[in-house]
Parts: sequence; C-alpha cells; structure tokens
Amino acid sequence: MPQGQPENVPDDGLTTRQRRNRPLVLVHTGTGKGKSTAAFGLALRAWTQGWPIGVFQFVKSAKWKVGEEQALKTLGASGEGGSVAWHKMGEGWSWVQRDSQLSNEEAAREGWEQVKRDLAAETHKLYVLDEFAYPLHWGWVDTAEVIEVLRTRPGTQHVVITGRNAPPELMDFADLVTEMTKVKHPMDAGQKGQRGIEW
Amino acid sequence: MPQGQPENVPDDGLTTRQRRNRPLVLVHTGTGKGKSTAAFGLALRAWTQGWPIGVFQFVKSAKWKVGEEQALKTLGASGEGGSVAWHKMGEGWSWVQRDSQLSNEEAAREGWEQVKRDLAAETHKLYVLDEFAYPLHWGWVDTAEVIEVLRTRPGTQHVVITGRNAPPELMDFADLVTEMTKVKHPMDAGQKGQRGIEW
Repeated sequence: MPQGQPENVPDDGLTTRQRRNRPLVLVHTGTGKGKSTAAFGLALRAWTQGWPIGVFQFVKSAKWKVGEEQALKTLGASGEGGSVAWHKMGEGWSWVQRDSQLSNEEAAREGWEQVKRDLAAETHKLYVLDEFAYPLHWGWVDTAEVIEVLRTRPGTQHVVITGRNAPPELMDFADLVTEMTKVKHPMDAGQKGQRGIEW
Repeated sequence: MPQGQPENVPDDGLTTRQRRNRPLVLVHTGTGKGKSTAAFGLALRAWTQGWPIGVFQFVKSAKWKVGEEQALKTLGASGEGGSVAWHKMGEGWSWVQRDSQLSNEEAAREGWEQVKRDLAAETHKLYVLDEFAYPLHWGWVDTAEVIEVLRTRPGTQHVVITGRNAPPELMDFADLVTEMTKVKHPMDAGQKGQRGIEW
C-alpha cells in the first residue's frame, strides 16, 4: 500500500505524534481467505520493531496455522526482533491444568481471561486474537465486555481480532476493519486444501 | 479457516492427490489492507514446508514492507525452513547494473523477465509478486503474456500476485482470488500510518 496522507485532521486535541502512536484495534473479517494470514503478516512487522507479540488461537484444532506458528516461534527465538508467546486453545491453554475438562465455551472464556490479564499487565505490544470473532459471535464471550476492556487498556497495545461474523458493535468500535471477500476459491472446483498453502 | 470439504468433485481425470498438489495462482486485490500482508503470511507457511521462496517487489519505494523483508530474510537464513530470495525494484533489481537508468516501466518489465527465467528454471516453489497488479493494470507488462507463462509453467510452482486493480482476465485465470475491502481505516479519522502496523 502506498503511503497515505490523512484526508482530514481530526479536532481531537492530539498532536500528530500522539495520534500516530495511538494503540489500534484491527478486525479482519469476511468469508474470504487471508484474515489470519494477514494478522500473522502484521506480526512480522511487529517482530521487526522488537515488539513482544502474544498470539491467542481461539480454535479447536491445532492442525491449522502450524506454518505461521513455527515461523513466528523461530523468529521469536532468534533474539533479533521481538519475543513471541503462542497460546493455543486447541491443545488446552498452557496455563490451564491438563486434567481440567473445559468445554469449548469455557475454554474460549478462559482464553479471554488471560488476554485481560496480559492487557492489564501490558505483557505484549501486539495481540493476535486469532478466530476470536467466533466466540464473540456465538455469545460465549461478551462483546460489550471485550469492547470495554479494549477501550480502557493501558499503554500502547495493538490488538488484531480475526474471524468471520465479527459482531457489528466490535466493528463500530475498531479503528480498522478489513473484510476479506472470496471472489474465487479452488475448493469450488473440487480441490482440497493443500499443505503450504492452506496450512 | 476451518478445514473445508470440496463441494463437488470435478470430472478432470485427476486423482485427489494430483489435484491437491496442483500449482496455484492466487490473487489478492481490492482497496483494503492485507493484500501484501496476507501474501507474506502465506510465505510463512511455505517457509515451514521448506520451500524455496522468491519475493519480487514491484514498487518504487523501498520503505514499505521492511518488516516483512527483515523477518523473512531472518527465517531464510535460519537454515530451518525454506530459502528466501528477496528482489526489490525500488532500489534497482539486484541483477541489473547499477548505472543503468531504467524507467519504472522498464524496471517492471525487467522484473517480470526475471520471474519468467526463474519459473522456467523452477527456481522457487512460491513466488510472491508483490504489487504486480499495478504494472499489469497500467499495461507496462502484458497480462495475456503473463497468463500464458503462468499457464505453461513447469512443475509445482505457486504464484501469489497482489495489488489493486488486478486485470479481470488475470482474475478469471487465477485459482483463488480474494478481494480485501476497506470497511474502516484510521486514516479516515486523520491518523497517519504508524511503524509496526503500516510497515
């Protein structure tokens, strides 16, 4: 994307610098591909800036996104850029006892509780809440509470939320919303997902 | 994205395995964010698979995507996954003599000539032709030729093309087309791009 100039300057009493460093909430939604992929691509930029990155995967299966996981963990361990903490709901969140049997709904809520704790402690500078739109859409996690927590989060912490069916209230609140629209997909022509492309 | 099942099985004489490993052409277009970011995110998956990756940036300025560049080069140099070759038009393609003064149009064509050579030699398994939709849209590089070269490329070489205004013929030809649509962008509210998020 070419460097953009703001179309108008808001009357919000902030300097350009303050506005520039404003913590952002980004939402990637829609039925097309690229929602999570673009979020992990953003993490590459954050890593280069040396930012601590927290990834929370709100999905059941651990099969998906192994490519991104391995690559970002390798970057995090390289000692050159930012750190990478990778949390997965699919295998049970690491901070939850193994023998506790959480339902998916409970597990999603538990993930959100950890995000809240990390936001309060300013643990990361970029949060990737991957597929978090689903538990919001299903009502497992309260959207109004999420918005309130995000609105009052301390410091400069950027948050990217991905997933289909992001709640309208969340999109209203977010600073940047991108909808990925499927124009054409090989599965329409009977092709199954393939390694290296789909995961 | 949850794992999909094909909606129908095509009558193309291919086995599921042959179809699964079919080389793909992907197009990320539209006016929203995430086109290039999602392409570089795809490169993370390819890297994890150990694939050689070739990135060709068809943009004038070298300022953009430095985050992705540094991260992917670090991955490529780690020796753990695939290799990463990163070619930039903005600083003059590395294989072009420094003192040759190419116009942007000539430089874009020269980039495409190198892509053709690499495709013929099966140099990479994933090609990211970043912002390549622009020279196609402007007619600097002939879309019909690009389609023909891609159609007849040997082996299993995946190609991702990004940029606004991808030509309709290219989208017709591509296996997967995603349109990124801007729903809301902080620049609308007068915010300038910020480091770590925009680049």
